[in-house]
Amino acid sequence: MKILAIDSSGLVAGVAVLQDDVLVAEYTTNYKKTHSQTLLPMLDEVKRMIELDLSTVDVIAVAAGPGSFTGLRIGSATAKGLGLALDKPLVGVPTVDALAMNLYGTDGLVCPLMDARRSQVYTGIYTFEPVSAQAGGSPLEECFRLNVRKPQCALPIEAIAEELNAVPGKQRVIFLGDGVPVFAGRLAKLMERPYSFAPATCNRQRAASVALLAREYAAMGKTEPAGDHVPEYLRPSQAEREREEKGC
Amino acid sequence: MKILAIDSSGLVAGVAVLQDDVLVAEYTTNYKKTHSQTLLPMLDEVKRMIELDLSTVDVIAVAAGPGSFTGLRIGSATAKGLGLALDKPLVGVPTVDALAMNLYGTDGLVCPLMDARRSQVYTGIYTFEPVSAQAGGSPLEECFRLNVRKPQCALPIEAIAEELNAVPGKQRVIFLGDGVPVFAGRLAKLMERPYSFAPATCNRQRAASVALLAREYAAMGKTEPAGDHVPEYLRPSQAEREREEKGC
Repeated sequence: MKILAIDSSGLVAGVAVLQDDVLVAEYTTNYKKTHSQTLLPMLDEVKRMIELDLSTVDVIAVAAGPGSFTGLRIGSATAKGLGLALDKPLVGVPTVDALAMNLYGTDGLVCPLMDARRSQVYTGIYTFEPVSAQAGGSPLEECFRLNVRKPQCALPIEAIAEELNAVPGKQRVIFLGDGVPVFAGRLAKLMERPYSFAPATCNRQRAASVALLAREYAAMGKTEPAGDHVPEYLRPSQAEREREEKGC
Repeated sequence: MKILAIDSSGLVAGVAVLQDDVLVAEYTTNYKKTHSQTLLPMLDEVKRMIELDLSTVDVIAVAAGPGSFTGLRIGSATAKGLGLALDKPLVGVPTVDALAMNLYGTDGLVCPLMDARRSQVYTGIYTFEPVSAQAGGSPLEECFRLNVRKPQCALPIEAIAEELNAVPGKQRVIFLGDGVPVFAGRLAKLMERPYSFAPATCNRQRAASVALLAREYAAMGKTEPAGDHVPEYLRPSQAEREREEKGC
């Protein structure tokens, strides 16, 4: 299966092509340009470098939110456009789940933190459960299943720290995401169990992780027609909030 | 500190720019083109996309071997050329150590396997040791130090499997690298403790991991003048072996 994945849910712009178990290409930038300046030129560059015939792609995967509203719209519009033009199905991957996949196989509690502004983070709590690998291998071979302990949501940092502290056992927490530099100081006061921060190689969105999770979804038949896809904002937009407040 | 890292030690061509704790760009391809067709165009593309002024780079990092002899020469020549032209120091990072860094923070025994042909793998055994983070944070904050349990070397797969089986304790082994598809069947027969394979997102060389390790080396002053850098082949080349056999 060949998957083309894009992620523009945060500051990062990412494009990846995953074919079976080989990451054929990944291009990631975290730079002050807007996604409208980066995402399609990056896709075009990757397409040229790996001589990608887009008609051979089986699935278009996209980080479907939460995240920056504008970023999500650019990502969704790009994925929908590609899906409609190429007549390919889409897989929308929850952004926070995809961030957790950056740390595939870790023993800790994985807690992505995306800065959601208004004193909140988009977050969730994940673990990786070892399971026996597919038939044909050794009984000692394991692989891992992403276990969504707390699905992605918008919360104050205090609330997610409290939930993490209350998890039984002594597992360390590993934080990642663009909320880390914003909330590291608060976490130092809030956390009551060992914790660490993911390194720069995997502390932001990766389109490769979107592709990896999309592969699982596609295998389960969880695809959607491109025309049906909508991003998951998790919260109302500023304009919607203001309209609500005005009662109109 | 701003680090420009390149990796062409295997089939993968990779370019990354790491600034402090932010991966500003990473571009990775694993495609049938030669590194002479990919590496410099990829660097040029990244430079343009993130408006990188090469004179602002502090260190040029390169995967210094072992690996494909031609690939290492292309990587070294590129790094040396950049270093000499820009008057910047180089950091040569052991390829197998950099592969292990892909799994930063994992609890298992990390065992990269690069197919070295002639029934051998370039390999090593690594763990990540939790240590208290820098002053100023919480006493509960940990970071990880790469512990080189067995330095990179060329071995038959049987020999490294035997060493892994003999490690005390019950830690799982995590294999990664282009040797995995070649030797997975043999490992199923050889391994006597639980093991898993890294996912497609981090099972091959990443220039970002080269940069991450180079940052540590540079902080310790382990840089070298560009003119002094030579790759580490670990084994003699075919031409050298044949000359040796002929006794000339």
